Amino acid sequence: MTEVTRILARYLVQAKPEDVPAAVKREAVRSFLNWLGCAVGGSVHQTLDRATEALRPFMGAGQATVLGRGEKTDILNAALLNGISSHVFDFDDTHLRTIIHPAGPVASAILAFAEHHPVSGTDFLHAFILGVETECRIGNAVYPAHYDIGWHITGTAGVFGAAAAVGKLLKLDEQQMVWALAIAGTQSSGFREMFGTMCKSFHPGRAAQNGMTAALLAKQNFTSSDRVLEAPRGFAHVMSTARNFDEITQGLGEHFEISLNTYKPFACGIVIHPAIDGCVQLRNEYGLKAEDVTSIELEVHPLVLELTGKKTPRTGLEGKFSVYHSAAAAIIYGAAGEGEYDDDVVRDPKVIALRDRVSATASQNIHEDEVRVRLTTTDGRVLEKHVAHAIGSLERPMSNADLEAKFRGLVDPVLGQASSTALLELAWKIGDLADASEIARAGANVAKARQAEAV
Amino acid sequence: MTEVTRILARYLVQAKPEDVPAAVKREAVRSFLNWLGCAVGGSVHQTLDRATEALRPFMGAGQATVLGRGEKTDILNAALLNGISSHVFDFDDTHLRTIIHPAGPVASAILAFAEHHPVSGTDFLHAFILGVETECRIGNAVYPAHYDIGWHITGTAGVFGAAAAVGKLLKLDEQQMVWALAIAGTQSSGFREMFGTMCKSFHPGRAAQNGMTAALLAKQNFTSSDRVLEAPRGFAHVMSTARNFDEITQGLGEHFEISLNTYKPFACGIVIHPAIDGCVQLRNEYGLKAEDVTSIELEVHPLVLELTGKKTPRTGLEGKFSVYHSAAAAIIYGAAGEGEYDDDVVRDPKVIALRDRVSATASQNIHEDEVRVRLTTTDGRVLEKHVAHAIGSLERPMSNADLEAKFRGLVDPVLGQASSTALLELAWKIGDLADASEIARAGANVAKARQAEAV
Repeated sequence: MTEVTRILARYLVQAKPEDVPAAVKREAVRSFLNWLGCAVGGSVHQTLDRATEALRPFMGAGQATVLGRGEKTDILNAALLNGISSHVFDFDDTHLRTIIHPAGPVASAILAFAEHHPVSGTDFLHAFILGVETECRIGNAVYPAHYDIGWHITGTAGVFGAAAAVGKLLKLDEQQMVWALAIAGTQSSGFREMFGTMCKSFHPGRAAQNGMTAALLAKQNFTSSDRVLEAPRGFAHVMSTARNFDEITQGLGEHFEISLNTYKPFACGIVIHPAIDGCVQLRNEYGLKAEDVTSIELEVHPLVLELTGKKTPRTGLEGKFSVYHSAAAAIIYGAAGEGEYDDDVVRDPKVIALRDRVSATASQNIHEDEVRVRLTTTDGRVLEKHVAHAIGSLERPMSNADLEAKFRGLVDPVLGQASSTALLELAWKIGDLADASEIARAGANVAKARQAEAV
Repeated sequence: MTEVTRILARYLVQAKPEDVPAAVKREAVRSFLNWLGCAVGGSVHQTLDRATEALRPFMGAGQATVLGRGEKTDILNAALLNGISSHVFDFDDTHLRTIIHPAGPVASAILAFAEHHPVSGTDFLHAFILGVETECRIGNAVYPAHYDIGWHITGTAGVFGAAAAVGKLLKLDEQQMVWALAIAGTQSSGFREMFGTMCKSFHPGRAAQNGMTAALLAKQNFTSSDRVLEAPRGFAHVMSTARNFDEITQGLGEHFEISLNTYKPFACGIVIHPAIDGCVQLRNEYGLKAEDVTSIELEVHPLVLELTGKKTPRTGLEGKFSVYHSAAAAIIYGAAGEGEYDDDVVRDPKVIALRDRVSATASQNIHEDEVRVRLTTTDGRVLEKHVAHAIGSLERPMSNADLEAKFRGLVDPVLGQASSTALLELAWKIGDLADASEIARAGANVAKARQAEAV
């Protein structure tokens, strides 16, 4: 069998920033900026409070920033916490072919790492691109079989991405990079069963932390398998029922998976986005209110019901896995940001009443980014909307202005407008910074840190 | 479907030390003592040096002892390092039905934990028994299908054991215990592909650390699935092709898996033990030397070749996965302790020459703890030995005196005879200590700590 792991490792070790096309770098900056906004925005979530409370007594020195919060910690725990933050709203980026959320595991690891080990913006952006390349290629090789078994691919593939990116910054040699990938792979984990709980965002956080650990160990020649990807008892055989290794080894350096990255306009699983988009459009076109609506019938891709079929969500987190709640919120609020997935909104009798009038049918004729909405009104009208490609898809990407608006919506409430503006400007310049960790420091919550000191 | 996870969690929360039979406790003490010797003995291995070197800059406060070494670290990293130490020689205990090495993930977690959070010997031993019960029952439910896929079951099941044991000491309530098991499960990982590399012992270490993390998070109400074991996208379906949940839920508190624990007389995978035992017996009965032997033919259980079929091991670690090297060493040295798996021994031309005269045939008629050895001598004799049950098996268990001799062999060279004696005495009394962490402090390497301070 081809030496799959070694071919990938060799590419990672030899790749140079100057060989990456400008358009790829631009998309990487957009991906990073979107991740950064999500991580700062998510930092206020209770998931972070509980994780921090549990682990604080055991953390290392204050080497790295926990974005949006007051504390600093060792780089491994910072990677964990920033990874959780960036995914806790389910608002981060999506590699559509695999449903991997690629930035979380990689950016969380290397931004924390950069605060301990100086990294230029050029090298940072390159490591980010390579990390995303690694996890998405490995995902491509096993998707959908791997996902269908029940693996949360952002965690299981993400750990390889984090190891590759940190390994690149550590200047691992080829054998060490092989081992870094292997030490990462033997920690690959995370069940889809966890969706709707705090453990979902734990997965990219842990992937970032474990991938970084893998690279650090490999740097000290901590030995591992030479064939973690392709061996009969390695990743692709143990964790998938089908696999195509060409997806990993072919065309390395010729095309880049980050070019296929997309960003969410709505704070929930991407499979519901067409339904939300369609409902928002109908609401705005006809000036609809909840009380105008007798019923909403959705014709959706089968994955929508499989992933987001919760009829009676009880919490905000569960609401993100309910196409019914999401459609109701879209009609009532014309949006599906974090606010529309607040516990109070999900439990609001008015929202519940409309939610109970939403039905959804799976259809093999509907694509993943498509929906047909059929809405009947109390005055007897039947309103229909066909969304061929939801906003945020590759065909209808978010513009830079859309991304900025999303960033401001997430970051302004946490850091305040002035710091948010400064951070946004830095994010656009990430590839040109002399010291990439400037971003991390600018993402700290100075006010909260002062409060903590004053206690 | 039955609430498998909840039934287990409820048992763990309600179980009381006084309900455990005395014989079970005695076996638990033997298991703990055997683990402690392995952990102190393994602490000198290069695997520990490399892991420590890689992670030291990111460790937390010196809360807990790294057994056999000079440094202290936070309890999570202590759990990792002690877990690695205890398995690095492949000399620890074995739950024969599942080939789980049960003590490592559990004892490594709770001994470190006890240095941060006071724990009586009674509670410590009880938590140890419950942790072993948890991992072995979960192993029973999915073995052998789970193992056959390629999962290193000591890591994948061990993480549940560590979570259960630390969760018991944290006095989690039922819902928190359900979550602790779930947070553990979603980190379950470790490929058999790693056998023969430093990553094999990394698995129980990481299981200890990750299981403890799960319990700590659950204590803060970090939410997770309610059905990690039984859900269609949970552990037993995602990570196994067959499962029997009765193994987890039936007879809880009536019989104890730790009663079925066994201890290795030889420092390698247990499947080779019958072959070593047979060769040692022939050597001693006939006074054989390497130059007397023309050929050694082994008739073995099929797993022997599957797991330990390395014809030409290049390192000590690889030697442990070579039935050929092990048989040669048994003839030459009459033993298979850590010394016989030294790199130099594996590369010794004399050993290699005899190794090349060893052949092995798999037979369906041979049990896992059985072997038939057929040895021909240069003077034309054919010597045969049938071992029905290898030493260290349930039928021929190691005595307390055997365990003490093994402990001394491992610990004396690391801590010196006086400290080794003191530690051994404490280990026998673990269930009666007012403060279980006394053991950890007695397992520290005072001389090395002084050296480190003097630098």
